[in-house]
Amino acid sequence: MNATVAQNGTFTEEERRGVYRAIYERRDVRAQFQPQPVPSEALRRVLDAAHHAPSVGFMQPWDFHVIRDRAIREAVHRNFESANRRAAEAYDGERRELYDSLKLAGILDAPVNICVTCDRQRAKGAGLGRQSDPAVDLYSTVCAVQNLWLAARAESLGVGWVSILDIDQLKAILGIPASLTPVAYLCVGYVSEFRMQPDLEEKGWETRSELASVVHFDRWGVHSEAEQP
Amino acid sequence: MNATVAQNGTFTEEERRGVYRAIYERRDVRAQFQPQPVPSEALRRVLDAAHHAPSVGFMQPWDFHVIRDRAIREAVHRNFESANRRAAEAYDGERRELYDSLKLAGILDAPVNICVTCDRQRAKGAGLGRQSDPAVDLYSTVCAVQNLWLAARAESLGVGWVSILDIDQLKAILGIPASLTPVAYLCVGYVSEFRMQPDLEEKGWETRSELASVVHFDRWGVHSEAEQP
Repeated sequence: MNATVAQNGTFTEEERRGVYRAIYERRDVRAQFQPQPVPSEALRRVLDAAHHAPSVGFMQPWDFHVIRDRAIREAVHRNFESANRRAAEAYDGERRELYDSLKLAGILDAPVNICVTCDRQRAKGAGLGRQSDPAVDLYSTVCAVQNLWLAARAESLGVGWVSILDIDQLKAILGIPASLTPVAYLCVGYVSEFRMQPDLEEKGWETRSELASVVHFDRWGVHSEAEQP
Repeated sequence: MNATVAQNGTFTEEERRGVYRAIYERRDVRAQFQPQPVPSEALRRVLDAAHHAPSVGFMQPWDFHVIRDRAIREAVHRNFESANRRAAEAYDGERRELYDSLKLAGILDAPVNICVTCDRQRAKGAGLGRQSDPAVDLYSTVCAVQNLWLAARAESLGVGWVSILDIDQLKAILGIPASLTPVAYLCVGYVSEFRMQPDLEEKGWETRSELASVVHFDRWGVHSEAEQP
């Protein structure tokens, strides 16, 4: 294909519906993982989708550490359980009971785990775009995570992001070079179902805010276009 | 709809193709913006897609500041020009010539700009999932950016992320509350074309790395599944 030729670029109605389905039907999966293996080809497709995320200066600062080894996942699961016990102490009363009833990770249930890291020293991109906000390389890595998550949904693969982990312990367990920053630890596998709502909404932990409350038009706090002068 | 009913969840081939098209044909647009306005309904759809991103503890820490006012965009453009002059000083010789030839922002060309912020003090989510890594609220906000970017591609809308901006000046120009953290400044509009390659690849600034070089299987540095014991 000739790189200088423009793409017409319009999506069919069904292609566009696919994008919105992935966005609206994506879930942070913890409880519904099934044990069957993820085929190498499907795994490669979601990783390649991640690798085609935007990155500052075209830096591509990410690595994807795919973990299927049971012993490694057991060590990560113990890390999670310990971090989660500490985290639970922040709550008491009914909130604590609700917290303790939540399943917050599927590390052992999901056949594949993926740790996504950011190499903040990577030379690619020659620093372009990185001088104003030092966090943009981390942000690029998160864009890769979200690409992976949506591609996985299109493949009927569930993904759950486990954020309750001691990061230094995680690096030691996985043998990740000291210079890298783990950004996301993902559990990946086929699921019994994709729930209609986020778990934390369904269980009453939190509600979804109204879109209008978080959109501002030209002036901060102006929540509707009609209010504009 | 009954929230307890499972979704079958399988995508049609064309829906799945839509997801991958959005991922592979998404571009960081700077030079191809067209002046025609973005209809309110299309803008609402991409903002709602962003609002349905995953967030730690269902915190939804984001706000979307939509800027169409020309005077505000001119002030942001001056901020960019000043930050970009400073950034250019990091390069010399041929690299500097190449840097100076790149168009790195379409702030005035794009009819809509969107500043996406993170409210790190937002009470929603009650801190769930935020004790191990303090950056996860920022990461949630980036997931919203990537949802917006992919939905925009499905709508034939281009998006460009401008990271070369003095953040404190930007907050002052937009009147953003001091407690909020700007995460992304996006230019949004219809485009003359979506290029086949990233600008920085096409112009010779950087090359795309091989997927295999950034994927590790179980042990760090093991780049193929066949190498596994």
